[in-house]
Amino acid sequence: MDFSSKLLEKAVNETSQLPGIGKRTALRLVLHLLKQPTEQTTRLTAALEQLRNTVKFCSSCHNISDVALCEICASPKRDRSLVCVVEDIRDVMAIENTGQYMGLYHVLGGKISPMEGVGPRELTITSLINKAKLGEIRELIFALSSTMEGDTTNFYIYKQLAGLDINTSTIARGIAVGDELEYADEVTLGRSILNRIPFEGSLKAN
Amino acid sequence: MDFSSKLLEKAVNETSQLPGIGKRTALRLVLHLLKQPTEQTTRLTAALEQLRNTVKFCSSCHNISDVALCEICASPKRDRSLVCVVEDIRDVMAIENTGQYMGLYHVLGGKISPMEGVGPRELTITSLINKAKLGEIRELIFALSSTMEGDTTNFYIYKQLAGLDINTSTIARGIAVGDELEYADEVTLGRSILNRIPFEGSLKAN
Repeated sequence: MDFSSKLLEKAVNETSQLPGIGKRTALRLVLHLLKQPTEQTTRLTAALEQLRNTVKFCSSCHNISDVALCEICASPKRDRSLVCVVEDIRDVMAIENTGQYMGLYHVLGGKISPMEGVGPRELTITSLINKAKLGEIRELIFALSSTMEGDTTNFYIYKQLAGLDINTSTIARGIAVGDELEYADEVTLGRSILNRIPFEGSLKAN
Repeated sequence: MDFSSKLLEKAVNETSQLPGIGKRTALRLVLHLLKQPTEQTTRLTAALEQLRNTVKFCSSCHNISDVALCEICASPKRDRSLVCVVEDIRDVMAIENTGQYMGLYHVLGGKISPMEGVGPRELTITSLINKAKLGEIRELIFALSSTMEGDTTNFYIYKQLAGLDINTSTIARGIAVGDELEYADEVTLGRSILNRIPFEGSLKAN
């Protein structure tokens, strides 16, 4: 792309560093900002700068938080014996949206992935094990995605928990509510048959 | 969406003001920035701020330019009697990429669109007419998109040119090179038959 302005070129190049944003999209976004009042750009850049420079993480669950102990970890209504292990803040938001979970979370910050250079030390696994050793946790729920990396991470944590009196579980995989059986993939359908639950239990859940 | 951090919420809200970026995508982009070194965010925000605050437009063609007269308008190699009217910088870049055009441009900055509150005064039409009155322009090529707004804008400019000795033309509409006739829409195919060109002319173009 040949730009008539170096400033424009720089802005487009930096914007296209974002994931899923190519040069054309970046140009569209930047031209949009140029058509809007200067304040919109100022607000956007100030918000990004402020977040990046002052972002804090909860000292207990490592979720993004403005205070040292996040709202969920600080809440007296939460069941402190139940901890759900997730990859990042998006998973916390998704589970919170269900309104079905009253335990705490532990945000790993990623999954073990040798391909991407992410080992156990890049994640908050040590912090999780230390919490587990305090003896307050009764059950650990693994809610990582069911990929090779997710399974590896689950297994690594599971091994580290050896000798501790903690139950572990993973979230149920199966046919989504409302989905047709005929369109489900074999692995999911297979699992949902193997891990079938008593009919009375399913009545209660509704 | 419930955010665990006000800073994060603000950054996501501002990012999702960009066209085509929803809250989920904005969250993904912002979390990506948080995983990258601080410098990436600094570079991005600095580039956007600098562009927005110091953006200049060419005094002749109104394209985005770092100098008072853009490279194209200042070039002695360009045919100053030929002016192509386009909507924005992206059209200039697209036409420049063809390497087929050696005239000048005039960037309108949009199209007349009463629905979006864009009238002739919001565009650089007066500047174009003033240039035309100087008598240097021999031909004006309309290269706006063939929508209701584009046609309206073309016609408005055409009327303003009344009494001036200037030829007007529009870019050819037809089947794209390499496209199959059977998949072309009726309007395009119809136009390409109506506006057929002598076979010898088409040989020269290749």
